Amino acid sequence: MLPFARVSIVGLGLIGSSIARAVRHHMPTVRLTAHDADPAVRARARALDLADDVTDTAGAAVMDADLVILCVPVGAMRAAAEAIAADLPADVIVSDVGSCKQSIAAALAEVLPGVSVVPAHPVAGTEHSGPDAGFATLFHKRWCILTPAGDADPAAVMRVSSFWEKIGADVEIMDARHHDLVLAVTSHVPHLIAYSIVGTASDLEEVTNSEVIKFSAGGFRDFTRIASSDPTMWRDVFLNNREAVLEMLQRLTEDVTMLQRAIRWGDGDTLFDLFTRTRAVRRSIIEHGQDDPRPDFGREHI
Amino acid sequence: MLPFARVSIVGLGLIGSSIARAVRHHMPTVRLTAHDADPAVRARARALDLADDVTDTAGAAVMDADLVILCVPVGAMRAAAEAIAADLPADVIVSDVGSCKQSIAAALAEVLPGVSVVPAHPVAGTEHSGPDAGFATLFHKRWCILTPAGDADPAAVMRVSSFWEKIGADVEIMDARHHDLVLAVTSHVPHLIAYSIVGTASDLEEVTNSEVIKFSAGGFRDFTRIASSDPTMWRDVFLNNREAVLEMLQRLTEDVTMLQRAIRWGDGDTLFDLFTRTRAVRRSIIEHGQDDPRPDFGREHI
Repeated sequence: MLPFARVSIVGLGLIGSSIARAVRHHMPTVRLTAHDADPAVRARARALDLADDVTDTAGAAVMDADLVILCVPVGAMRAAAEAIAADLPADVIVSDVGSCKQSIAAALAEVLPGVSVVPAHPVAGTEHSGPDAGFATLFHKRWCILTPAGDADPAAVMRVSSFWEKIGADVEIMDARHHDLVLAVTSHVPHLIAYSIVGTASDLEEVTNSEVIKFSAGGFRDFTRIASSDPTMWRDVFLNNREAVLEMLQRLTEDVTMLQRAIRWGDGDTLFDLFTRTRAVRRSIIEHGQDDPRPDFGREHI
Repeated sequence: MLPFARVSIVGLGLIGSSIARAVRHHMPTVRLTAHDADPAVRARARALDLADDVTDTAGAAVMDADLVILCVPVGAMRAAAEAIAADLPADVIVSDVGSCKQSIAAALAEVLPGVSVVPAHPVAGTEHSGPDAGFATLFHKRWCILTPAGDADPAAVMRVSSFWEKIGADVEIMDARHHDLVLAVTSHVPHLIAYSIVGTASDLEEVTNSEVIKFSAGGFRDFTRIASSDPTMWRDVFLNNREAVLEMLQRLTEDVTMLQRAIRWGDGDTLFDLFTRTRAVRRSIIEHGQDDPRPDFGREHI
């Protein structure tokens, strides 16, 4: 049984367009409407036939929906909710895919009082952006975290959960505050460090950018992938999960300082012990199906 | 024309065994001898038929060679050189593949006085280790950096350069000191940060290891790949390139502090500007053929 018959997607970037493709693939009878604030993206979405109807206004996309998913950057969630508020049907469920759950929950509760809201965060993506970058299998075997408020309707939570399972995801339910802490560790701080290290490397005087690029296969290039993710999306993430990101950064800085000291004093045992422990984490990730088991992420070596 | 007729490889891990396979593939008439200090690795190398002769002593592997390549961890280079010193033929060239060039150059000059030494560093690898992990195409389109001393024989440098080109690499010649600085940026600090962030994430009380693993697709898993590299090799790298690594870490820490401040004060423009600049670095790396152009490194999404 399908959890929803009429799904509306607001925002057709990597995530929104992937959801559209996944719905088309896994639930072909669902009536799919969509909107994007950018006319060029709407035109492209029509050319790609991403939905049954790509509407010129957000309101027109949601007026007949039983599920609306907001797929815009975290900082644009409030405006997206305002744009649909007047046209939402009475029994609709509103969800989103933002990477910070506390700030979005607060914004949606304010803009959409009385509406059934079930926030979601599919932990999946690539470094590419826009409607052409999406694909139907993006959420396969990835986790989608739902962070319903304490007073959320259990039936609504169940239906949103079922929706994500139908497009291939595993679902976990979590408190919004805990979500923001977990994701600060597994996503936000890694992105910030990647952006930072790529920035530091480009700013050196003693080492040219051409050298950084040529010899990036030594490890640096791994960081450039997530450091090429969408700038707007990531700016909004850091501004909206400030406390957890700063706390985790502080921890990381302490640990780096400890390693710095070990290097300075030639304490090889401390380094060796850490490097052995971290190997086990990779093994667990592979065992749990959360990364490609092939060496070098499956990069081509031809 | 082949630069060498009789090549000896000492150390049959990922890099040594990949060189052996690449020589077999690209220069099948070369007589290949090899040795590893570990009897189990020697047995495995014989089973894999990695060389014409896998000898039980290092001396026996090099006694008839015109090129010897030391493929052991940086901290084991001196001992490997001592083990071959008495058996080196008069006109041999000795090279190595270590990731820190200054300390190795000093050790080889001391242990092998009068021997023609042309140090090399192929900037290539995977997170896997051992003789089974190697493959013949590992060095294709990757850079190999030679760091000959100022008084090195130009003909010897030319022959080692030709050797690496024959197995698919591009060659760059560099001063050892500059090499160590460049690699601190493009390889050593990225590894240290990856190890550190994986360690920090495993040590948290508020977020379980199971959560870190489940939600690692948010970015964290990218870091776990290089953080699962060989602990001995990497301990040695940090102990042997101390100054450059500490200098680069200091720079990175300053830049992270600046971002921390931008997050705390809600300075979105600083974040946005950096995130836009770093995107261009990724593009250059792809344009220069130094990474897989497919999204997500070509990871499987099925």
